Amino acid sequence: MSGVMNFKNCGSVLITGASRGLGLQIVDSLANGGFSPGKIIATTRHPASAQKLHELAANHPYIHIIPMDVLNQESIEKSVEEVGQLVQEEGLNCLINNAGINLVADFHTVTAEQMIENFHTNAVAPLMITKAFLPLLKRAASRGGAGSEASMGIQRAAVINVTSLLGSVELNWGERAKNFKWYPYRTSKSALNMVSRCMAVDLEPDGILCMAIHPGWVRTDMGGSEAPLSPEESISSILSVIGGLTEKDHGSFLNFTGEVLPW
Amino acid sequence: MSGVMNFKNCGSVLITGASRGLGLQIVDSLANGGFSPGKIIATTRHPASAQKLHELAANHPYIHIIPMDVLNQESIEKSVEEVGQLVQEEGLNCLINNAGINLVADFHTVTAEQMIENFHTNAVAPLMITKAFLPLLKRAASRGGAGSEASMGIQRAAVINVTSLLGSVELNWGERAKNFKWYPYRTSKSALNMVSRCMAVDLEPDGILCMAIHPGWVRTDMGGSEAPLSPEESISSILSVIGGLTEKDHGSFLNFTGEVLPW
Repeated sequence: MSGVMNFKNCGSVLITGASRGLGLQIVDSLANGGFSPGKIIATTRHPASAQKLHELAANHPYIHIIPMDVLNQESIEKSVEEVGQLVQEEGLNCLINNAGINLVADFHTVTAEQMIENFHTNAVAPLMITKAFLPLLKRAASRGGAGSEASMGIQRAAVINVTSLLGSVELNWGERAKNFKWYPYRTSKSALNMVSRCMAVDLEPDGILCMAIHPGWVRTDMGGSEAPLSPEESISSILSVIGGLTEKDHGSFLNFTGEVLPW
Repeated sequence: MSGVMNFKNCGSVLITGASRGLGLQIVDSLANGGFSPGKIIATTRHPASAQKLHELAANHPYIHIIPMDVLNQESIEKSVEEVGQLVQEEGLNCLINNAGINLVADFHTVTAEQMIENFHTNAVAPLMITKAFLPLLKRAASRGGAGSEASMGIQRAAVINVTSLLGSVELNWGERAKNFKWYPYRTSKSALNMVSRCMAVDLEPDGILCMAIHPGWVRTDMGGSEAPLSPEESISSILSVIGGLTEKDHGSFLNFTGEVLPW
């Protein structure tokens, strides 16, 4: 609840991979938490089969479903055009790079193809999407947002990369490292952390905040049924963190609770 | 000099990407520093055009040149067969994953293809090579090496991943981040750091040491003419560090000077 309140000065949010899992929950929590009258732009590779998203959109006219295949440059650019027509001169305030996959493979089973596929979706796609949406993010940032002109945050313009604790090289040691020996996933998320940090450096002159957040271990198709957090709990917490981001969080790697995580 | 002395109890070293740059210098420094009678196995994609390597091998009969295309699984496996015939029951003591590329591209110019190509060569290839050489590394590790049976180090079995300071997410900030905005390279090296850490976890039960080392900024084709270190200086220093590695360095990220670097 409180998480969504922080979005009251954010004119538009785009969420990739919004047809299920955490992406769908972000759309749901924003819409049902009173995000209106901002625009919620939900992207998914196959809008036709995104039934739950359509049900949400039927009840909330400010949810816009736009097709985007995050691995396809042409598709990304087409979605930028559609979003540009939606947001017009206001630009895009908040881009949440949420789409991701987990190709489970350990040292003995992992293949080069799995490593590359997971890397492409989880680390390269957020980079290519952010590059493509840069004009819309800059447009929003140049308007200064609701707060002070020099401030950073989602009321102005922000890029949020949904990463994972499993992408922390530091924490991949000792007892913690005995579980989740997922080479493609872990590697893709540490790569995403570097991409996030690189982008933070380059987006700063335009006043666009950029950071990476770990949503917790959540009971989704990806997280499995034994995970301790419900999607509602995770998203309530990360929306609260995202909504409260300021300059001091630029370039950071935060837990869903708001704590700084080691790279 | 002192660096090579530490290799006196190491029966065999394999260096990938040994036809030029730091790889060639490792072969040169080991051979001319009195590494004999160990085996130096130098791999390169195109042995026919590796003139300097052939000149070294002509003077040092314990240098063995073996073809390996680090992007080609069949080629990797063929080189494992050849190395197996060379080292026989002694196995392979030290695998140095040195082959790497730098596709220079910044935020505005970078493409998905460049990201994937650099990632494949710099992060995925060391993983696939280590997997393929595991039987030979285990064979060496099971013989216990020259020291105590339980010890770790190059006298027993070790995987050394040549990484970069530019792969440190932590250090990619502030003044340091204003230079070398190389998205494909930085990302590939932070991915390699995660691969290195994952492998350290999995190789530990077999007594195989695994770590990542930054060779410094060196005057090679990749480093350019303005780099502060000569190849001789860099390699003298990293061979000294590699030669002195023990259990406490397992899973680490070290500078060429031996200092611990942040992830």
